[in-house]
Amino acid sequence: MRDKFKFLPKKNKEIGKQVYNYINTLTKPLGSLGRLEELAVELAEMKDDLFPNIMPPGVLVFAADHGITEEGVSAYPQAVTEQMVRNFLNGGAAINVFSREIGAYLEIIDIGVAKDIAHRNLVNKKIRYGTANFLHEDAMSYDDVERAIAVGYEQGLDIIKKGAKCLILGEMGIGNTTTSSAILAVLTNMDVASLVGCGTGISSERKGHKVEIIKQVIKNRNPQPHEPIDILSKVGGLEIAGMAGAMLAAASTRVPILVDGFICTVAALLATEISKNAVDYMIVTHESAEPGHKIAISLLGKKPIINLGLRLGEGTGAAIAFPIIKSATLILNEMATFDSAGISKRESNT
Amino acid sequence: MRDKFKFLPKKNKEIGKQVYNYINTLTKPLGSLGRLEELAVELAEMKDDLFPNIMPPGVLVFAADHGITEEGVSAYPQAVTEQMVRNFLNGGAAINVFSREIGAYLEIIDIGVAKDIAHRNLVNKKIRYGTANFLHEDAMSYDDVERAIAVGYEQGLDIIKKGAKCLILGEMGIGNTTTSSAILAVLTNMDVASLVGCGTGISSERKGHKVEIIKQVIKNRNPQPHEPIDILSKVGGLEIAGMAGAMLAAASTRVPILVDGFICTVAALLATEISKNAVDYMIVTHESAEPGHKIAISLLGKKPIINLGLRLGEGTGAAIAFPIIKSATLILNEMATFDSAGISKRESNT
Repeated sequence: MRDKFKFLPKKNKEIGKQVYNYINTLTKPLGSLGRLEELAVELAEMKDDLFPNIMPPGVLVFAADHGITEEGVSAYPQAVTEQMVRNFLNGGAAINVFSREIGAYLEIIDIGVAKDIAHRNLVNKKIRYGTANFLHEDAMSYDDVERAIAVGYEQGLDIIKKGAKCLILGEMGIGNTTTSSAILAVLTNMDVASLVGCGTGISSERKGHKVEIIKQVIKNRNPQPHEPIDILSKVGGLEIAGMAGAMLAAASTRVPILVDGFICTVAALLATEISKNAVDYMIVTHESAEPGHKIAISLLGKKPIINLGLRLGEGTGAAIAFPIIKSATLILNEMATFDSAGISKRESNT
Repeated sequence: MRDKFKFLPKKNKEIGKQVYNYINTLTKPLGSLGRLEELAVELAEMKDDLFPNIMPPGVLVFAADHGITEEGVSAYPQAVTEQMVRNFLNGGAAINVFSREIGAYLEIIDIGVAKDIAHRNLVNKKIRYGTANFLHEDAMSYDDVERAIAVGYEQGLDIIKKGAKCLILGEMGIGNTTTSSAILAVLTNMDVASLVGCGTGISSERKGHKVEIIKQVIKNRNPQPHEPIDILSKVGGLEIAGMAGAMLAAASTRVPILVDGFICTVAALLATEISKNAVDYMIVTHESAEPGHKIAISLLGKKPIINLGLRLGEGTGAAIAFPIIKSATLILNEMATFDSAGISKRESNT
């Protein structure tokens, strides 16, 4: 797996410098568009393009179930994964609304939902009917993990081939904040309690239970910190493996990855464990309300763009932040320069 | 002036409760859209509408000059005000780019530029050729202030009549961070040094000079803290008065005001000094890099939506944040409910 992604392309820092200099000729005070200017430089470096374009975005939502829900770690029953997939397919979920608004291609991928779903718009790539309950046995086999990553990779390449100029990865899987917290605890070796939040809305009592379950899970499974396949096999999720695979597809083809919330950021960490340079293509779009997210973002070495207390998943935070990132590309493409507009330069000695 | 705006409509809190309850029926975990849910409630309360619509936005950019530029307080020569107005009219400035992107009506209003500008797209409402140098004499007369507020008010009503469903107020005026810092110092009685920043990009040496000038200005002019007309007359700016007037037009007609950066927020404070309830219709879209902005926002009692180190003005921060606010309205208009999508409710005792 690591061999396949050993040689991801590097960002073009030289183009970044050119874009930086060009931004300083635009009709606005130097540096006055703050983070947008940084984003414009980063996107140019990723895409190796002086005028990077991220339209249209591609949104891939990977759905899968988690056997650990048997332990009562979530506010919703497992059946909601399948029900929400149907909601996605019918266009009524938050990610549908925001994807339409930003003009995105949206695809829903069943990579491991516990029930069969027949729908012409569903991409059926089911690896298995949910993970096993990893309190008692490994979530899945190494082979399952590698197939799930491969599915993500293929779907990533596919939507890019269809024209997506950046990728948003979303997920649906009741129980997946528990899975992600377990993965993050392994990656950071931090105290589980400091990483765990209320997910989609459990009580503080049930949160205590969730913490204890995760501690026991890590003890029982003993995943190896720098072995992403081992981690995913022991305490992972199919949708998380799929998202990591799609990110590797994006990084392989210089397509910016707009990282969403907690679960997506954990997938991003796993992708960088598979191939370090993948991080060069990632923009963390928001900081969510889930406490582990801040830690995961910092481990990835990134700075979120917005912080609106979101904790929905599905890729929604990335879709909500998308217009800001698009704005960064528009200043390069559409603003006049001081010379072209005939405007006086700054006074010297200012 | 205060009599005219004594009876601004109140927000409809009852509608807010209904919207809050409706949001809790949508297919997402309770509260999981964070700030977006709060915005949806606020917009409904402002507009007295269960399904508030803010499309299309109206952007009014007020341009005027400042006599205080004679004292060397800005990084750019005064001529840039007029040159940037021409850039706006030719579509090359940042606010043009972002206005197009969000589908806004954009109008450029000359309310006091030091030079005459002839252009068919310019709204010429010049009150005077810039303010006087308020280090030595009052910026303008009471009558000028009232005329400038009236211009803003009329332009606000006009763009609303044309169909704008929310208002973004922008400004262009070399020297206007100095003017705004002076106004904010009067409103807060705080130490001038703590409010003053680098504006469009002066050196720290020149910033020290700017602080000294503002201190001397306040001593020389002695504006009365709770008398907005007096403040504007002594240390104000024509574009700031215009923006305040436009905000009063919006508040009078239940149109949400998307407050931009430092100068716009100072105008918002003056609007609330004229009529307290105007604050009910304001959403502070971002926190800028100018240190006084944080203080002005807090005095207004608001919480910014984004913080991207912007310090450009023109209304750009509000335009960049606009899609997030629009997203809040879309969840009400487009998302399915648990019942309509046939999705299981949360488990009890979660």
